[in-house]
Amino acid sequence: MGAAQRDIDDLPRNPANHTALTPLGFLERAALVHPDRKSLIHGSVSFTWRQTYRRCRQLASALTKRSVTFGSTVAVISPNIPALFEAHFGVPMSGAVLNTVNTRLNAQTIAFLLEHSRSDLIMVDQEFYTLAEEALKIIVDKSKGKSTPPTLIVIPDENCDPKSLQYALEQGAIEYEKFLETGDPDFAWKPPEDEWHSIALGYTSGTTASPKGVVLHHRGAYLMALSNAIVWGIKEGDVYLWTLPMFHCNGWCFPWTLAALCVTSTCLRQVTAKGIYSAIANLGVTHFCAAPVVLNSIVNAPKDETVLPLPRVVHVMTAGAAPPPSVLSAMSQRGFKVTHTYGLSETYGPSTICAWKPEWDSLPPEAQARMNARQGVRYVALEYLDVVNTQNMKPVPADGKTVGEVVFRGNVVMKGYLKNPKANKETFANGWYHSGDLAVKHPDGYIEIKDRSKDIIISGGENISSVEVENVLYLHEAILEVSVVARPDEQWGESPCAFVTLKPDVDASNQQKLAEDIMKFSRSKMPRYWVPKSVVFGPMPKTATGKIQKHVLRAKAKEMGPVKKSRL
Amino acid sequence: MGAAQRDIDDLPRNPANHTALTPLGFLERAALVHPDRKSLIHGSVSFTWRQTYRRCRQLASALTKRSVTFGSTVAVISPNIPALFEAHFGVPMSGAVLNTVNTRLNAQTIAFLLEHSRSDLIMVDQEFYTLAEEALKIIVDKSKGKSTPPTLIVIPDENCDPKSLQYALEQGAIEYEKFLETGDPDFAWKPPEDEWHSIALGYTSGTTASPKGVVLHHRGAYLMALSNAIVWGIKEGDVYLWTLPMFHCNGWCFPWTLAALCVTSTCLRQVTAKGIYSAIANLGVTHFCAAPVVLNSIVNAPKDETVLPLPRVVHVMTAGAAPPPSVLSAMSQRGFKVTHTYGLSETYGPSTICAWKPEWDSLPPEAQARMNARQGVRYVALEYLDVVNTQNMKPVPADGKTVGEVVFRGNVVMKGYLKNPKANKETFANGWYHSGDLAVKHPDGYIEIKDRSKDIIISGGENISSVEVENVLYLHEAILEVSVVARPDEQWGESPCAFVTLKPDVDASNQQKLAEDIMKFSRSKMPRYWVPKSVVFGPMPKTATGKIQKHVLRAKAKEMGPVKKSRL
Repeated sequence: MGAAQRDIDDLPRNPANHTALTPLGFLERAALVHPDRKSLIHGSVSFTWRQTYRRCRQLASALTKRSVTFGSTVAVISPNIPALFEAHFGVPMSGAVLNTVNTRLNAQTIAFLLEHSRSDLIMVDQEFYTLAEEALKIIVDKSKGKSTPPTLIVIPDENCDPKSLQYALEQGAIEYEKFLETGDPDFAWKPPEDEWHSIALGYTSGTTASPKGVVLHHRGAYLMALSNAIVWGIKEGDVYLWTLPMFHCNGWCFPWTLAALCVTSTCLRQVTAKGIYSAIANLGVTHFCAAPVVLNSIVNAPKDETVLPLPRVVHVMTAGAAPPPSVLSAMSQRGFKVTHTYGLSETYGPSTICAWKPEWDSLPPEAQARMNARQGVRYVALEYLDVVNTQNMKPVPADGKTVGEVVFRGNVVMKGYLKNPKANKETFANGWYHSGDLAVKHPDGYIEIKDRSKDIIISGGENISSVEVENVLYLHEAILEVSVVARPDEQWGESPCAFVTLKPDVDASNQQKLAEDIMKFSRSKMPRYWVPKSVVFGPMPKTATGKIQKHVLRAKAKEMGPVKKSRL
Repeated sequence: MGAAQRDIDDLPRNPANHTALTPLGFLERAALVHPDRKSLIHGSVSFTWRQTYRRCRQLASALTKRSVTFGSTVAVISPNIPALFEAHFGVPMSGAVLNTVNTRLNAQTIAFLLEHSRSDLIMVDQEFYTLAEEALKIIVDKSKGKSTPPTLIVIPDENCDPKSLQYALEQGAIEYEKFLETGDPDFAWKPPEDEWHSIALGYTSGTTASPKGVVLHHRGAYLMALSNAIVWGIKEGDVYLWTLPMFHCNGWCFPWTLAALCVTSTCLRQVTAKGIYSAIANLGVTHFCAAPVVLNSIVNAPKDETVLPLPRVVHVMTAGAAPPPSVLSAMSQRGFKVTHTYGLSETYGPSTICAWKPEWDSLPPEAQARMNARQGVRYVALEYLDVVNTQNMKPVPADGKTVGEVVFRGNVVMKGYLKNPKANKETFANGWYHSGDLAVKHPDGYIEIKDRSKDIIISGGENISSVEVENVLYLHEAILEVSVVARPDEQWGESPCAFVTLKPDVDASNQQKLAEDIMKFSRSKMPRYWVPKSVVFGPMPKTATGKIQKHVLRAKAKEMGPVKKSRL
């Protein structure tokens, strides 16, 4: 005895003990375990898990009959309706990759995505049919008629104007239910041979100008689906509400999580505070995911649109822009239990969580909200998370002060950007995925985002975190939404410029006075050099997922010209 | 457009987006997220997650200094105390494989295991020191002094007689805490390079005569750890009680599950109903796993040892032998929520679950217990489960009648048996893992075990399920435990023979009368040919995990000689 041996590792894989990880099997299991439980509810339409599994197999079979196969891409342009959920299973069950398209993009951008992804077939919600049509026209025109446009499947929704469906059918689109009928509900779908095979493609949008195609694989989708449940504590028997668009990073992988848990989904075509409160009151909703902007609208909803006090604790997972502590605190006061997470499309959605510590229970609400506004620690499924000095890749000290870049490594990091070796090389430099987000690491190991690299404001050589300035401004009673960007400044190079949307009940007639009041408020709450030198009122440009488009505001601030010395 | 493309899959793995799955990282995360939360409580001893992580790294470091490395095996002979939990992380953090040894085995068998596994180092609880010593003596004697015995580390426990520790130290054993001190608490452990690397080795015991070494890998341990949480709904903030031995199939992978959830463990050196009730009352226990025999003792505990009504719902996961419906029903009446699962050491512990359906809520308690006594459906982490005709591998019809063999396929099926190609070939035949358990599939897709292949009784050419006979006998008011095996029978070839342990309050003076009463009871409840022709009273031979050793009873029944024709 005593010598190391290889016998113990000399047991090769065989068909009985190794299978490619895929979230698709979760649906088969849900249909077996809870066949009669509701899978999806959408207005007067609902399905059971048995039905959803049959419909997804029908979809896969129908796609297969249209030559969709391994290596194909199927695009879907749709809000949160059952067909988009079904596509998350039916499309990869055919071997193809699901390309979910943001419905708020314009035809030009959609044309770019469809061409770049080489989508073979497009499923489009009836309301967005003309948008898809317009995008395809751009492609055909560009190819001078040489390109054959992909098949269009139109998804009907009783909540839409019947005319748009009629129009689509007149143009020759295939109706989704008719398309399903061409498929076999007992279709013997095959799981992927390799868990590294691609399952989904989503284009980054909004805060940057050039969309990049983020490719995700079955392995990561499986692991993220389980990890969502583990870190959030959502379980069988809960009821989930769809406010987060499923087209955005596959709804943070929740279609797959919900199937793994056999949890019922309720759809919400139009996301309004009233609709959310109504679903909580009438459909037993216990959990939903939402961008901070949605929380803002929940907090600021007129009393007659709410159902307060809540009939039960409602769990909310939020991510995207960092939620201002004031909004977190207000949600908590209304009885919502907010779990703050953070991630990117490149990390399958949220992959860090601000895990609540028992010792925070005794803190005052504002202090709790400040703790909870941090981006936290890695998800169970993410192996490594750090904040590093990008010059030398060394971790920053856990001092809550030194800013570095947030980097990720692990199984829930994307395969890469589609057909973009240059971007892949940059983003995966030094064995880490580089997020472009700037953060500090606190003494307790929790990270806190200070800004996107490009959102940082450099004033007189000092870095100013636009997020920190925003967090203070959110405490001002007149402000509904605020975004701070750099504006050129004659004396300081750059200075903070605040774009503000006021609460509905605020008298906006004297903007000059309001601006002065906000600046005065700022001087009392933050270092002098952080105080916005410019305050601009108006509606906020946003991405489809509710993220404020800082690049648009930055352009506006630039257009305004530099802040003059004389103004100081 | 239109053609299938390979671009979408042409994105290779890189260090940023692919990491070997391992449950070891769960501990690092627990120490980061909840450093001050209790990880383990054992009598007056307790540790936090920060301490446990440091101690496990110390253990890994100390092992490394003793030349333990990738390919080594470290054996642990210990009941459920903190050191055994620590070994689940510290041993594989050194690269070695953890070989947990059943403490109820005799020295001869342990000698076989230690030689077969080529264990380099043995950690042994002080109470079992002389047992380990005896086993090593057998090995040394057998080698005629040529073999150098492995290093012995003795684990102290304040709950044991101090003399056994003193003896071990006198014999030159190294004290566990002293051993830890030789290690670095900041040891930079490395995750496995390949998730297929082995993490644990456990020998099957008890119901069969020849122990086989079941080898498990990091990938499976990771997936099972998460799946345990998903299917059971155990989550952060719960409190877990160790009644199931950690040496048995790595406590069904729960050491790793608990670290993933940051759930506090409480240990129980001696498993008694009183100890379990006391932990529920005093330590906030919400969840525990236990073999059916433990449930039996909970149900039959004297009133003064219970804390009924329970202070909260206590969730119990049970597996092993099929629990009799009568026991399930009694547990339910006492406020325990029993989740019935089934699996084998070869499937990382339970890998099927009798998932509760809402429609059972309205059934009478007995009918509920009958539904819940079934083995159910696959775990989320198990990809395929079926009941097949082993002649042609075809699934049996879901008629609740046709018996076939339970077969498994997926990522939570073992790597194989150590150094046993013949057994591996048989067990992995036709691309499935063959359990040797016989079951039916019900119309709802749930499977129900009828017997182990070798436990079936063939009487007059008819198959009799020993489990079904037992389930009926458990309804008899005098019976505490019963096991039915085949006894040779002059007329019928075999006939059922019931071995019975009576409840403590039963007058056992007239065994003849009791036996007749049990047979009479049987005739009123089951087909005539099922009725035991022999009833034997006495204590039940059991494995360390509380499984009744049917092979011992079968030998006894054989010794009794055939049932004579005249007795009919």
